[in-house]
Amino acid sequence: MKPIKAYRKRVQYYETDRMGITHNSNYFRWFEEARLDFMDQSGRSYLELEEMGIFMPIVSESARFIAPTRFYDEVMIKSKMTHYNSYKCTVEFEVIRLNDRKLCTTGEVVYAIVNQTGKPIKLSKDFPEIDSYYNSLINYQSEEQVQM
Amino acid sequence: MKPIKAYRKRVQYYETDRMGITHNSNYFRWFEEARLDFMDQSGRSYLELEEMGIFMPIVSESARFIAPTRFYDEVMIKSKMTHYNSYKCTVEFEVIRLNDRKLCTTGEVVYAIVNQTGKPIKLSKDFPEIDSYYNSLINYQSEEQVQM
Amino acid sequence: MKPIKAYRKRVQYYETDRMGITHNSNYFRWFEEARLDFMDQSGRSYLELEEMGIFMPIVSESARFIAPTRFYDEVMIKSKMTHYNSYKCTVEFEVIRLNDRKLCTTGEVVYAIVNQTGKPIKLSKDFPEIDSYYNSLINYQSEEQVQM
Amino acid sequence: MKPIKAYRKRVQYYETDRMGITHNSNYFRWFEEARLDFMDQSGRSYLELEEMGIFMPIVSESARFIAPTRFYDEVMIKSKMTHYNSYKCTVEFEVIRLNDRKLCTTGEVVYAIVNQTGKPIKLSKDFPEIDSYYNSLINYQSEEQVQM
Repeated sequence: MKPIKAYRKRVQYYETDRMGITHNSNYFRWFEEARLDFMDQSGRSYLELEEMGIFMPIVSESARFIAPTRFYDEVMIKSKMTHYNSYKCTVEFEVIRLNDRKLCTTGEVVYAIVNQTGKPIKLSKDFPEIDSYYNSLINYQSEEQVQM
Repeated sequence: MKPIKAYRKRVQYYETDRMGITHNSNYFRWFEEARLDFMDQSGRSYLELEEMGIFMPIVSESARFIAPTRFYDEVMIKSKMTHYNSYKCTVEFEVIRLNDRKLCTTGEVVYAIVNQTGKPIKLSKDFPEIDSYYNSLINYQSEEQVQM
Repeated sequence: MKPIKAYRKRVQYYETDRMGITHNSNYFRWFEEARLDFMDQSGRSYLELEEMGIFMPIVSESARFIAPTRFYDEVMIKSKMTHYNSYKCTVEFEVIRLNDRKLCTTGEVVYAIVNQTGKPIKLSKDFPEIDSYYNSLINYQSEEQVQM
Repeated sequence: MKPIKAYRKRVQYYETDRMGITHNSNYFRWFEEARLDFMDQSGRSYLELEEMGIFMPIVSESARFIAPTRFYDEVMIKSKMTHYNSYKCTVEFEVIRLNDRKLCTTGEVVYAIVNQTGKPIKLSKDFPEIDSYYNSLINYQSEEQVQM
């Protein structure tokens, strides 16, 4: 597998609020952006999974806000799948401001693995190839991107 | 039909941006909130229409921003369907700040009428009861709500 | 103090995603809506606090998604401040679907108390009246609203 | 001036709604993303302008939805400033789906040019350098990006 680069983005104007900082709810959207990009780079887009009948709704999620980000800040978002067991997986995220390498936000999201009707599925049994794919990504840390 | 009241809401914190005002994109979301509430009050929720197989994607929309709204402003949104012809309809919106009755934003949205697969349908032929309902609402102006 | 009613709202179309359910990030926006409404009902709007120079950025937050909500579901959001100590406070939230009383989501948000420049302030020293107000709300549970 | 590339992005999951397509309000956010990227590439970021005391609130905007976009579609957004007169400017946008070159959405946004307190300013008098910059961009069309 070729190296997976950390996701990069700029804070958009519409993502800020009247306090002049990124609204807290948007970090959960960025975690989603980062995870989708991670999967895409690893060779299995989430769209492809949904088309196979695999859906991954969120069971729980949390974030800790260490420092705010502001309009037009460039950030890097690292993702690492720390746990996977055929039924669900956990991904940890770090949002790092690029100009000073400040860790601004950390987060954790737990995903269930279900079919289109929301019933749990067991990847090792129902989709062994996807199960191997997930197993190969455990604790894989996306790489930093120093240059945009 | 009993009178339909104009939709009311408060500007939320997450709807503001770093300029300290409501982000422009949210007015289109408020138009949607107001229209859904209008339909609900008129006795035919949009959800019911979708369940019957009637979908109303947007063909075009516009807004004119006359004065900004800010966090926790209370606004009233009036809607009026100005045009309907079995295939599509046009709704005009007015966003009025309640504390000083200032007209802050006007907008217009044109909706197509299609089935689940996106094919145009003709309400007068396919759903005559809904066609009558829409005809009865032409130029109906929702009423002001002075008291919350 | 007169009873504080739980916050109520309908799930909006723009809050749903292609899975047909409310996007996870919106629950954190609803927690904000519910808290602002709670403060408003208790006699101290958050806007008033910001105008006095008291800002409450979020330190951390989490949510657990037990059951999804869908377009046009009516939900009730209960809030309870479980901890307050002059520097920060913790509020717990419950999102309950009204038609079947199903508890769909729980959440917890920790707020810091700072001045406009982001420096921590101690309410008991700097704003004793607001400190009393917060103390009076510890463990106060907003009341259910059976009728809209 | 070096060529300015059209803005590119993927449709995010949280940008779709239960109809399975991008929610209309998000196109106005994309226009903003595209314009900020355009300014950035042209050598004058909008952030820099705000720091100089130049703000550009929106006077009016519109969009025409020709074909929907869906989750994970890659789109290119072209921007062209068609009018500028020291007090305001108009930018036209085109959203093109990359896999089939389909023109999905067109839009137009009119911006006012004001100071921090919202008072109109005249760039040719107050900021002649920025006035020249804007004049140089009239009818400049961002270039297509065939390769991501």
